[in-house]
Parts: sequence; C-alpha cells; structure tokens
Amino acid sequence: MKTRTEKDSLGTIELPADALYGAQTARAIRNFPISGMRAHPALIRAIAAIKMAAAEANRDLGTVTADRANAIMAAAREILDGKHHDQFVVDVFQAGAGVSFHMNTNEVIANRANQILGAKLGSYEKVHPNDHVNYGQSTNDVFPTAMRLSALLALEDLYPVLKSLSATFAKKAEEFDHVLKSGRTHMQDATPIRLGQEFAAYGLAIAHSCRTISRTSASLRELGLGGSAVGTGLNTHPQYRALAIQNLSTLTRQPLCPAPDMRYAMQSCAAMADLSGSLRTLALEVIRISNDLRLLASGPNTGLNEIQLPALQPGSSIMPGKVNPVLAELAAMVAFQVIGNDTAIGYAVQAGQLELNVMMPTITYNTLQSIHILTNTLREFDQRCIAGITANEDRCAFYAESTVSLATALNPYIGYAKAAELVKESIASGKGILSLAREKELLTDEQITEILDPQKMTEPRETI
Amino acid sequence: MKTRTEKDSLGTIELPADALYGAQTARAIRNFPISGMRAHPALIRAIAAIKMAAAEANRDLGTVTADRANAIMAAAREILDGKHHDQFVVDVFQAGAGVSFHMNTNEVIANRANQILGAKLGSYEKVHPNDHVNYGQSTNDVFPTAMRLSALLALEDLYPVLKSLSATFAKKAEEFDHVLKSGRTHMQDATPIRLGQEFAAYGLAIAHSCRTISRTSASLRELGLGGSAVGTGLNTHPQYRALAIQNLSTLTRQPLCPAPDMRYAMQSCAAMADLSGSLRTLALEVIRISNDLRLLASGPNTGLNEIQLPALQPGSSIMPGKVNPVLAELAAMVAFQVIGNDTAIGYAVQAGQLELNVMMPTITYNTLQSIHILTNTLREFDQRCIAGITANEDRCAFYAESTVSLATALNPYIGYAKAAELVKESIASGKGILSLAREKELLTDEQITEILDPQKMTEPRETI
Amino acid sequence: MKTRTEKDSLGTIELPADALYGAQTARAIRNFPISGMRAHPALIRAIAAIKMAAAEANRDLGTVTADRANAIMAAAREILDGKHHDQFVVDVFQAGAGVSFHMNTNEVIANRANQILGAKLGSYEKVHPNDHVNYGQSTNDVFPTAMRLSALLALEDLYPVLKSLSATFAKKAEEFDHVLKSGRTHMQDATPIRLGQEFAAYGLAIAHSCRTISRTSASLRELGLGGSAVGTGLNTHPQYRALAIQNLSTLTRQPLCPAPDMRYAMQSCAAMADLSGSLRTLALEVIRISNDLRLLASGPNTGLNEIQLPALQPGSSIMPGKVNPVLAELAAMVAFQVIGNDTAIGYAVQAGQLELNVMMPTITYNTLQSIHILTNTLREFDQRCIAGITANEDRCAFYAESTVSLATALNPYIGYAKAAELVKESIASGKGILSLAREKELLTDEQITEILDPQKMTEPRETI
Amino acid sequence: MKTRTEKDSLGTIELPADALYGAQTARAIRNFPISGMRAHPALIRAIAAIKMAAAEANRDLGTVTADRANAIMAAAREILDGKHHDQFVVDVFQAGAGVSFHMNTNEVIANRANQILGAKLGSYEKVHPNDHVNYGQSTNDVFPTAMRLSALLALEDLYPVLKSLSATFAKKAEEFDHVLKSGRTHMQDATPIRLGQEFAAYGLAIAHSCRTISRTSASLRELGLGGSAVGTGLNTHPQYRALAIQNLSTLTRQPLCPAPDMRYAMQSCAAMADLSGSLRTLALEVIRISNDLRLLASGPNTGLNEIQLPALQPGSSIMPGKVNPVLAELAAMVAFQVIGNDTAIGYAVQAGQLELNVMMPTITYNTLQSIHILTNTLREFDQRCIAGITANEDRCAFYAESTVSLATALNPYIGYAKAAELVKESIASGKGILSLAREKELLTDEQITEILDPQKMTEPRETI
Repeated sequence: MKTRTEKDSLGTIELPADALYGAQTARAIRNFPISGMRAHPALIRAIAAIKMAAAEANRDLGTVTADRANAIMAAAREILDGKHHDQFVVDVFQAGAGVSFHMNTNEVIANRANQILGAKLGSYEKVHPNDHVNYGQSTNDVFPTAMRLSALLALEDLYPVLKSLSATFAKKAEEFDHVLKSGRTHMQDATPIRLGQEFAAYGLAIAHSCRTISRTSASLRELGLGGSAVGTGLNTHPQYRALAIQNLSTLTRQPLCPAPDMRYAMQSCAAMADLSGSLRTLALEVIRISNDLRLLASGPNTGLNEIQLPALQPGSSIMPGKVNPVLAELAAMVAFQVIGNDTAIGYAVQAGQLELNVMMPTITYNTLQSIHILTNTLREFDQRCIAGITANEDRCAFYAESTVSLATALNPYIGYAKAAELVKESIASGKGILSLAREKELLTDEQITEILDPQKMTEPRETI
Repeated sequence: MKTRTEKDSLGTIELPADALYGAQTARAIRNFPISGMRAHPALIRAIAAIKMAAAEANRDLGTVTADRANAIMAAAREILDGKHHDQFVVDVFQAGAGVSFHMNTNEVIANRANQILGAKLGSYEKVHPNDHVNYGQSTNDVFPTAMRLSALLALEDLYPVLKSLSATFAKKAEEFDHVLKSGRTHMQDATPIRLGQEFAAYGLAIAHSCRTISRTSASLRELGLGGSAVGTGLNTHPQYRALAIQNLSTLTRQPLCPAPDMRYAMQSCAAMADLSGSLRTLALEVIRISNDLRLLASGPNTGLNEIQLPALQPGSSIMPGKVNPVLAELAAMVAFQVIGNDTAIGYAVQAGQLELNVMMPTITYNTLQSIHILTNTLREFDQRCIAGITANEDRCAFYAESTVSLATALNPYIGYAKAAELVKESIASGKGILSLAREKELLTDEQITEILDPQKMTEPRETI
Repeated sequence: MKTRTEKDSLGTIELPADALYGAQTARAIRNFPISGMRAHPALIRAIAAIKMAAAEANRDLGTVTADRANAIMAAAREILDGKHHDQFVVDVFQAGAGVSFHMNTNEVIANRANQILGAKLGSYEKVHPNDHVNYGQSTNDVFPTAMRLSALLALEDLYPVLKSLSATFAKKAEEFDHVLKSGRTHMQDATPIRLGQEFAAYGLAIAHSCRTISRTSASLRELGLGGSAVGTGLNTHPQYRALAIQNLSTLTRQPLCPAPDMRYAMQSCAAMADLSGSLRTLALEVIRISNDLRLLASGPNTGLNEIQLPALQPGSSIMPGKVNPVLAELAAMVAFQVIGNDTAIGYAVQAGQLELNVMMPTITYNTLQSIHILTNTLREFDQRCIAGITANEDRCAFYAESTVSLATALNPYIGYAKAAELVKESIASGKGILSLAREKELLTDEQITEILDPQKMTEPRETI
Repeated sequence: MKTRTEKDSLGTIELPADALYGAQTARAIRNFPISGMRAHPALIRAIAAIKMAAAEANRDLGTVTADRANAIMAAAREILDGKHHDQFVVDVFQAGAGVSFHMNTNEVIANRANQILGAKLGSYEKVHPNDHVNYGQSTNDVFPTAMRLSALLALEDLYPVLKSLSATFAKKAEEFDHVLKSGRTHMQDATPIRLGQEFAAYGLAIAHSCRTISRTSASLRELGLGGSAVGTGLNTHPQYRALAIQNLSTLTRQPLCPAPDMRYAMQSCAAMADLSGSLRTLALEVIRISNDLRLLASGPNTGLNEIQLPALQPGSSIMPGKVNPVLAELAAMVAFQVIGNDTAIGYAVQAGQLELNVMMPTITYNTLQSIHILTNTLREFDQRCIAGITANEDRCAFYAESTVSLATALNPYIGYAKAAELVKESIASGKGILSLAREKELLTDEQITEILDPQKMTEPRETI
C-alpha cells in the first residue's frame, strides 16, 4: 500500500496515500481497534450538514474566506449526499466526546476541499482541518449537535414503520371485530371479549409509543452549536450561532433552534436519555405484544391456537413440520437489545463532568443502533407477520362459551357470592355456566339467555 | 385480642373484632408477609376517591340504591380525608393486579358504611364489598386508575421542590456571575468560564426535567375506569364510565378523562414506564450535578476547592474536623435508587399478559417510592445544601489565569498549530500562556492583553 | 418530651432526654428525613459484633482500658442480642459511607456503656463514642465490614428457604414422574416429555442458584477491618487487625479473614456487586419458573390446565369463583424488585472515588432488602404454592398424544423431509400422526407402535 | 449473479450458485435484514466443533455411516480452522433459539461434505443437513452448547489481557511505592497514603475480577448436548451424549462434561446470566478506576495533577495542546456497553418458556460482544495507558503535607474533640497542622515530629 506522511502536534504518522482523512484519524485507527463497527450513516450525514452550515455562516460573517468556505461546503455536500462514507474509519468505541470522529470529519472535508481547490492530499495550507473546516467550532459543540441531529434523522425512518404497524393492527382489529373469544386475566378464564378489541389495543399501543417518541425528541431540536470549547462561544462571531443553526435547519429540513443556554446544551445529555427512555417504552410494548401473539398462536395441538402467524421458515432442525413465530421472537430479542442500550445510555448520561459529557460516542452509537434495529425489525414484523395473521374462529368461539367467568354477568341479579357458588359447581361438575344457571332456574330462561350472551358481554349495557 | 369470624368463597377466617377490613384482607395478611411496607398514602387517597366517584355515578344511574351509595361515599370521604389509613394493612408486595389492596379497600369502605348505617362490622347485608362498594367495578379497571391517579397526586409534592431547587440554582448563578474560573473538559484545562454560567446550567437542567416529568405524566390522565373485568365494561351502565371519571376529576381537582380505548388502558402500563423514564432522567441529572459539586468542593487543601458546601454534621468518626458533602452524596444515592426502581418498573411493564398486567403493585410501589424519596431529598438538597454554597473566588481566579487553554483565543490570529506549540512550551517551562505570548512577541502587547483577557473569553466576540 | 443538650464539633443540639444516641445521630435525623425506613436488623447485629470484637482486641492490646472495653463489649452484646434496636434511628438513605449510622452505633454503645459504668446519658468522659468505642476504627473500615457481614448473616435465612424450595420441586418431580405430556418449544408442539422431568429441572435451577449465591458470597468473608481512615491502618496497633477479625469470626460463627489488601477492601465494593448479580440470576430463574407455572396452570377452561395451584384467596372483585396464581405472581414481582435493586447497586458500586466508596448505605439497603423479600416470598411460594400443586393427568395425556411433533421419532426411519410431509397432512386433515403413519403404511404396525410410543420418547434409545 | 434453486418444507427458493449454504439460510437472509452484524468467530468455531464431535460419535455408534460422518468431520474441521466463515451469513438478530444460524451451519457442512464426496452443491442425497449433519441433534441442544462453548473460547482471549493489566498495575505500584500523597475520602482531605498503595489496589481489583469470571464460567462447562428436541434425548443413541461431549472436550481442549440434567441445561440460561454478571462487575471496577485515573491526572494547571497519562493524540479540535485521557475514557464507555449488554442478557434469560429459551441468539451476541470489546479495550488500556503512567512526585508530596487530616494521628494523644478544634483553626488560619501543633505545644516537639510524619501514617504502628 502506498502511504504518505502527515504531522500533528504529537509528531508524524504514516497513512494510505489516497486517504481523505489525515494524521489524527490515523492515530485514532491505532488507538481504538475495538469493535470493528463504524459510524452510522445518519451520524455522518449530520456532521457533514453541520460543517456545511458552519462554513456558510463563517463565510457570510467573513471569518472564513469565501473560496475556502465554498470548497468546504462543496466537500461537505458530497458527504451529505452519501459520498466518501468509507473514509469515516474510526471505531464507534473511541476517544471521549467523539473528538476522533470529529477530526476524521474535519480531515476528510479539508482534504476533499483541497482536492477541489487543486491542492494535493495532506497539504493543509489552502484548507486546514482545524483553522478553516473547524473555525469557531469545537468537538464540544459540534458532536452534541451531531448526536442530536443524527437521532432526528434516523427517527424519520422509524416513524413510518410505526405508523404502518399501528395501521396493520387496526386493520386486523376490523377484520377480527366479530370474533368472539374469552378474555384472560392472570392467565385464568375471564369474561368474553372480541379478538378485534384486543388487536385494536395493540395498534393503539404502537401509535401511542410513536407519538411519545416524537414528542420526546422535540428537545433534541434545541442545539448548542456555537458554544465552541466550553459553551461560552469563544472564537465565534456573535452572529455565528443563530446563522449556523438556521443554515442547518434549512439544509436538513428539520425544525432546529439554538438551545436557551449553551452551557446546559453542552453539559447535559438529558434529552438523549429521554429519547432512549421513550424507545425503551416502545420496546416494552413490543415484548408484551410479542408474548401475547406467541401465546395466542401457541399450538397447533397443544396450545391456545386462537390465531395463526404466517409460516416463514421451517422451525426446527429436528422436529419436522414445525413452524415457529420467528418474527415475533425476533421482535422481542431486538426489544431486549434496545432496553440494554438504554441502560448503557443511562450510565453515559450521568457521567458528564463539569463543562462536558465525554461519553457521547456511546450514547450516539446506542441510540442509533436502537432506532436502526427497531426500524428494520418492526417493518418485517408488520409486513410479514402481523399483516398475515388469521383467526381460528371456532377455537375462539369454543373458549367464549366455556369460560367460567360468564357467571360474572349474573352478579347484578344474584350477587357475587351466589355466582361464585355456581362457578365452583361448574368446575367440579364440568357443566357449563349456562346449563347450570338454567338447571337451577336462577332466573327465567329468557333472562339467562339474554344475560349470558357472550357477545353482549363485550360492551356496557343496562341491567334488564 | 378479640376476634370475629368472616366467610368468603374459600371458607371462614378469623380477624380482629374491631377491624374495618374483612375476610379477604385477612387472607392477604397471611398470604403476603413479605416486606412489612404498606401502601403509600397517595395510593390510599386515590382509591378512596375512585370508590366515592363510582358510588356517586352508580347512585345517579340507579344501579346502587341512594342510601347505600351515600354511606359508601361518606366512608370513602373519610379515607380521602386521611382517616382509617391504618386499616390498609396489605404488604406492598402482594397478589397480582393489586386485588388484595383493592379488596382491602372494598372491605374497609363496606364496614365503615355499615357502621354509618348502624349495622355491625362483618355483616355485609346493608353494604356488601363486592355487590355494592365494587358495583360495576373490577380490580382490573380500578387499580390501573388508582395507580395513575396516585402518581399524579404524589407528583404534586415533587413539582414545587423542583421549581424551588431550580430557582435556588438560578439565584446562585446570579450571585456567582462575576466569578471567573477555568472551564474543564475531559477533566483537563479548558477555556475560561464564569461560575455563574455553570450554576445557571444546573438550574436549567432541573427546570427542564421538571417540565419533562409534567409533560410525560399527562398520559396518566387518560383512565380506563369503567372497563370492569376485561376492558369491555361488562356490568356497567353505558353512562357510568363518563360520569364516574367526571366525578373523580372534580373530587381530586385533577384534569382526568376517559382513555380512548378501555382495553389499551387495561393492558398497557406504558404511561407508567414513560413517567418512570422521566424520573430516571431527573435522577441522571442529579447524579451529574452531585458529582460536579463534590468535585468543585473537594479539599479544603487537597482538592479543587472552588466552592464550599454548608457543613451539616461532623464528617468522620476518626478524622477530626472533616466535613463531608453529605446531602450531595445522599442525592446521588437516592438517584441510584430511582434508577433501580425504574429497572423494576421496566420488567413489570413488559410482563402484561393479554387483558391485564398483574404486575401493577410493584409498578405502583416503585413509582411512588421514587417520587417520595426524590421529593424529600431534593427539598433538603435545595434548602440546606445549594442555598448555602459559597464561592472561593481567589481559587477560581487562580485557575482562570493558569489554564493552558487560554491559548485557544490565539487560534484565529496565529493558527491552531502554533498555538499548540505555545501550550507545549508553557507546560514544559512552567511559564504562563500570557507571559509566553508576550515574550515571543506573537502579537502586539495590546492585542495580547485584549485577546487573552479571560473575562472576554466567556462570551462570543468578533476578532480584533 | 424531655430533652437534653449535647455538643459536637459543629455546636450544640437538643435530643430526647432518654435517648441512647447522641448529638451526631440527632443531626442525622434532621439531615435525612427521606424514606422513614431504618436499618435492617442484620446490619445492626453486624456492627454491634464489630464493635464488640474491636473493643476486645483493643483491650487485649492495651489501647483501650479494660474497664472501658468491658463496658463497651457488654453494651454491644446487648445490641447483638436484639436489644436497643429502636435506638438505631437513622434513615436508610443517609450520609455517604454510612457515617451517620456508624456514629449512631458509637453513640448508643457509648451511652449504654456509660450507664453500665454508672455515668449518665450524654456524659462521655468514661466512655467516648469516638475515642473509645471507635478506637482505631473509622467508618471507612467499619461500615464496609458491617455491609459484608450483614449480607452473610441475612443469607443464612435465605439458604434453608432455597434448599426447601428445591427439595419441594424434587418431591413433585417424583410425584409427577409418570405424567406424560407434550413438550413445547417456541410455544409450539414439541416432542413428549414427563411432567416430572420439568419439575426436576425447576428444582435444579433453584439448587444451582443457591450454590452460586453461596460460592459468590465467599468473597465477602475477606474483611478490611483494621484499615481505619484510608486503608493504611493509621491509629491501629500492628496486631489489632488480625485479632479483631478473629474475634469477629468467633462472635458471629462465620468464617472470616483479613482481606489481602486493606486499600482494595475499602475502595472496592465488587464483592457486593457479585453477590447482587447472583441474587439477580436467582430472580431471573424465579420469573421464568413463575411464568411457566402460570402458563401450565392457565384455565380452568380457556388455558392449558395441565396443573393446578392451591387456591389461596378469591381471585377477583368482580369475577366470582376466580382463583389466581397469586404467589407465583408475587414471586415474579419480588424478583423484578431484586433486579431493580441490582441496578441501583451497580450504579453505587462504580461510584467509588479514590480511597472510599461513599455509596455503601444504598448498596447495603438494597442487598439486605433483596435477601429479605426473597426469603419471605420463596418460603411462602414453596410451602403454600409449590407443595400443593396437583397434576391434571388426563389433560397432560391428551397433549402427549396429540402433539404433531410425535413425527420426530420417525426421522431416523423415513427422513426429516418425509416426516415433515406427514405433519403438514396431519395439521390439514386433523388426523393424528399415529393414525396417519399407520394409514400410509410407512412402516410395520409394530414398528410404528414402538417408535411412536410417547413414553419411550422421553429417554434416549437405540433405533430399532 | 448465477443462482441455483433449492427446496425445503415451505417450497423453493433461489440462492447464489456457489453458496455453501442452502434453502433455509436463504430464507433467513430474507427474514432477518436487521443489523448487518454476523456471528462472532468464536460462535462459528464452537458450532463447528460440536458438529465434528457429534459426527464422530454417530459414526462410532453406527448411527451415521462412516463415509458420511468422515466427510462431515472434514468439512467441520475446515470451519474450525477458520475457513468458510464468510458462508455464515445470518444476522445476529434472527429467529428464536438460533435455528437459522444452526441450519446455516448444517447446510454449509452438508454442502462442503458433499463437495468432498464429489457431489454438487444443493444435492443433499449423500449428506443431508438434517438427516446426517444434524443426526440426533436439535437446535435446542446444539445452540445452548455452542453458546456456552463460544463464551469459553472467547474468554481465553480475555484472561491474558486481565492478567497483564493486573501485573502492570502491580509493577506501577512498586514504582510508586515511595510516592507519599494525601488520601481522599468523600473527595475531602484524608490521611496520607502512598501512590503505590493505590495502584496495588487497582491491580488486585482486576485480578479479583479475573478470578471471579473464571470461577463463574465453570458452570458453562456443563453441557446439554444430547438432549435433542426437548431435553429427553429423543433420536439419540444412549451412549451418544457422553461420547459426543468427550469428543468435544478433546477437540477444543476445554474441560467439558454432560450437565447433570438435560432439561435444566436446555431450559435455563442462568449460567450465562452469571457470566454476564461477573463481566458487569469487571466493568464496574473499570469505570471506577478510569474515574480515579482521570481525576488524579486532571490538570495540568487546573486539576489535581498527581499523575500523568501518556499522550496518544491531540485532545481537542479547538483547544491547542490539549491532551485528553482518551483510553481511560474509552475504557469507561466500553464498560457502560458491557453493563448495557448485561441488561439485555437479563431480559433474555428470564424469557425462557417451558422446554426452551428461544432468546439465546441475543444472549450469545451480547456476551461475545462484551468479551470482545473488553479484551480489545483493556489490552490497549494496559499497554498504552497504564504502562506509561508517571507520577508527579512534588505535587503528591505537597498534598501529603497539607491535608488537614494529618491531625487524625493526634487522636490517641489529645482526643478527637481537641484534634477537631485544631483542624478548624488550621482551615481558618491557613496554618498547617504541624505548625499549629508545635505552636500550641500540645506535645513535645519530638513527639509531634514522630506522630505527624506522613510516611509513618501509611502503616499501622504502636502509640508512642
């Protein structure tokens, strides 16, 4: 491999001759051979947009010359458009505060800008990573901004998936609205319910989580860009901050605004903890729904078998003909990961010290991974599992008629204590509640038929 | 102890003759001898209010006779007003879904209502715990409602504490606005900042958390009361649900409304996870601020010693004259507990099955404990720690002048690389940045004085 | 209330005239009005034993006079024997490092020793809390020792409960050894298994956890007592450490030894994290087993209904005759709490700084609570739930014969692919695997009978 | 791309013509497009070893013909030796229980074995993935075994790193044994200690964690291989289990044995939770040590500056000359991730249902990632950070002499109360403890010199 030599304040270092990155990135590669995982595209796009917005502001305020700023903007635009992502080579586990990823960005943009201006790689006289690309900027205001912005960008992929999943449940709810079954509480016979009612509630759970995530993420729109080294705005023009954030908003088509306090925006990652918390709640709901679906679909012959999930692959290497609820299982596993990621984020968020939280790289990695795997998983879960669920109506009807909690409807007429006696006798004798109620002539036959109609038990009604 | 005998569907049981509770509570005492801890007052008030609201609705709809309903309402009112709390004797770790706590409530109200009506304890003909106190109700709609309402009630005590704490920080921020010091990032010398700027950010962190908690708790106002056994409203009058919730809102002076879907409100505890998540974020911020304050107050002779916390007690059993930051330590410990409680809540929230989440008692206990200990701790932290902090201005000034990052201000004039050389030399030689800059005649003396003025580094400014 | 006045290095303070505690405890009451919860008895016994052991060592080494030391030992012995526990009045959430609880102890012992010596409360000339009770000791070596020892003492109550629970499962395993049923993996029909095989595995899970907890807790036996202020042993006699720990071992009948390094024993709470981790694993197993039991006991008419749990209380306030698996639910809820406590402990353990971890009070509280509630819960779970489980043999047999995975046994004879065809046909037609295999004459009737015998599928066997 | 068509029980599917995998893997690629991450090499090696061990056992027991078994063994050996890893293409987030990864393995081995036997890819007559490669096996006994074995294999890389790190701390402890400094507890002045004493304790912390991990992982050596579908050993020869595990032990040079109960080994992932718990404890210690080092190295001019960490890269994009403790920060971030992974594992471990825990893929992924990133991080931390630490002896000495807790040594001579007065006066007046003690003639000059010698305060000693 051909190499070139570069120099930074710690000395010289070799790097590939055609690398767009420079000395500090080369050091970071050596310093952090940890996981092999690299930055999520949303983070690369976010930081490119920031560099572009900052260059434009600096150009317009006269702090960076127009030719330099324009070259920087052109280089950053290429990255924003998806080019050069292979030049972002720093491990997700890296130096505190993301300084390595940030310098990787500054170097790639500087080198690309220099290329555009006709200079060669590694010569930073025309455009220097620190003095020009990073003018008036610091990892300490750029990375927190990129962290927040990348989450907002990544969420744009999650929302449609959640909306579609919620809609699919709602559609199934309509489809199953007439399917009468038994409710179960404490895993024990309860009063009748309609399968559609259950599915409607699943849809609402997803829709509610989607709204909560969106509402929670609003705090991420308040940005500390412009705070530079410690949130005081040292080395920035007084108008830079407002201008740069406005540019960023335009570039990314995201509503963004300056945070009310630059120190707070730099010190605190609370907004990321809040977002992660709302992703955790989604995960908790996904686990619950996955558990329910796997329970309802248990069988075919030894389970509840109320519904059937689409068959996606042979289920067992030894048990022939077995079909497992693989996407529901996957959804639960991914949800566990999101909860684990949330724990890592919690630790990182509390670990801020004084002016800065240097643990941002791990907050960012975990947040983006959570969003990424939720998006991919729930899309498949929606389209290839939920959308294809069918109901075993006969089995459902059987349960609706046999639950001992039918007796509940008799409470207003004969009282809880007597109804309890009836249930005991039903369990002991194996006779159904309906037959027993008739046999004992507790009420008239018509009354009994009316009161114990399972369908009518699925909505409020006046006593007769 | 004198006893009386009661009977339920499982047989007879002995209980204290003067107990307001009945057979099922007596069974619960025997079944759950776990922690010795009993229900938080906010939960008792919440369920009393629900029983009162339900009785009023049932009276007005004719489903419970007026004399019974009025007696029930009178009994419930007493509990809401703080009476008979000693009759709520079930352990916080109890039967799933809170059925024991719920029956404890039904029995206490029934017995008290019977007393009011002139009947004796344990005779449930006039007012029966299930048939009258609980008419049209189920643990499955009452407990989820009580859980949400109790959290809302408990939060009313937390908000003023958070507001006061935030205000105290803001007041200190003003007081310390002129105190110049060095910023620190990565625990290393950074550029100057004002102590007041740091304290202002702490105040905003608390204020932001307060707003987030309040916003997040809004979902708790959507109640599933009226869903009865499985969220279908079985045994309720079609108008009961709206009426009961309206009564409840009036009684508690809390904005409350029917949940859009009774099944969802019964199945899902997502709203509790969201609330707990926002309490966790507050806890994360409290830890961070506690860490910062203990760092800044470290010393007196071997630490940073920038600020001084009020002395509250001798700090050591062996080291004489030692004074420790005990309230800051306490704040961190309580925050750890809140985070631990949040983990327990997460597990409980995902464990819902089909129509119900039976793990609500542990969700409720952890939520109320978190709010309770945060309230008490942050009140003390505010009044007896933060309010009494003083600044060691000389020490702060010393740091402001000695940080090597003063050189940052030279970037726009001499470039990052040359400034880095200066810093290296400063560290090696022990000479200050200001002296070195002058010695090397990098710029005119006036420029240097202007550019390296630490005070001016704490706000954005144009290059000169 | 009659009061007396005491003085410490911060000034004077009023306290109840007959309190055995003194000025510093009085300050702690005022400083920490947080939860209302007080120290667990195991912690009080542990610290009393330490004080007794230290006094004896100091007496024998001549560093505390014999009359003082004897009075201290007599006072400490009373506490160890369960007296004066009401004098330990500091909240579990208190000053960092447990200095308040420690001084509470020193003061109670000093006052009680003075009483024994005929002096009056609050006069510390004969026996002084710091100079005599605490001679050569510091919160920083005493509290870490008390924390570890209290856990060891509390665990002595947990072990017999775990052993009994494991034995009960083993007994049930024998009782159910002949009960043939269908296995289920992924909640889908799998090959036959015996109910006794399942219960034997539950018993082993508990036994394994018990052994792991015991093995893990061995590290707690290495004590830092003697390290005094920062683990250097300042103000201790060179022979004190060995002597005091030997005394402590004798007093508590626990194998105990000096830690290999006093600094490590003071800095690190890793041993507590390890213990908590092993309690977490127990909790995870308890949740899993609780889930399984509730699933197997689901019904009576709308669930799997393979087993029946003892009825302990009416299950519902609205659904008459309902019986819920309350102790299994309780076990899961308590397990969630243990996991939550483990999270709090994790945060606290990492928060040590330099010579000390001041977060020990919260580590101690959570550890002792976890052990306490596990002990009480699993005892009830064992005696009143597991011991009374009965099997519904007919239902189990029905599943054993109807699972489509019976076809697995045909693999070695007809291959996986053909067996899969058979299963598909069975599901489509509703015909059993046995009938189909016969109908298709895949093998001789005798072979089929032999190969598809569910009972024989529950052990390895040679192909025929 | 050239493709071939294969068929499984769900129909036909296209795949790359030269793929060693088959139909079920192709389905899995389509079903699980989640994270882009693939199996860790340790898992691939583990499952290859299992397949080889099983084939050998089946050959020797006559259940698979020798030519087939030999071909399977040859193919598996290639994978064990690092070949064909690119054919393991299933996402780490996949079907429950790892059935997709398992079938991926069966298919790759079958195809490769067929190649060896001269048959073409996708023709499974000579060697069939289910009937021959998987003979007597099930995902349900193979994957749990592979999960455990892969962790054991991965740990082999972690141990030497931990041993080296511990040894480096010990070496530094010797180097710094003479460096006197002040202890700090509660971040406040405490009594003197030697820097070497602190570093020795860090070394012991790592050594202790290493031993705990090793001890905890012993449970992983008990394997359920041979349990086949539900832990009953269906379709296995009675001698298979013992033989296969013996082969596996030989192949991997790991002590391995049959689990005492096959059902327990299949149901329970407790051993994985225990391992993860012990990795979490290591992580907690790493965070604590990272925090301490960053605190001690804080500065150069505004911090404690007791030690210096090696400079590895420029620390800031804006602050010239800044050098940050990047590897210590990295170590903390990676530790947070390990704790997060532990949370995910906890959720997965409790989610077992009846005969199987289908959540094993996420347990495996998280465990292997934790071990992997800890190994890589702590190796760098050791070699490039700890090994290069230097002490600033002057600064340390300054603190040793100025800590107000020197007064502690006077306790045995003048009592705690008087010593406290001295400290108060020292803080108020700025005079050192030594000077004040002399000034006040509390003891003879010689006594004072002897008693207040900081060096002598770092070990126990008799009173003079």
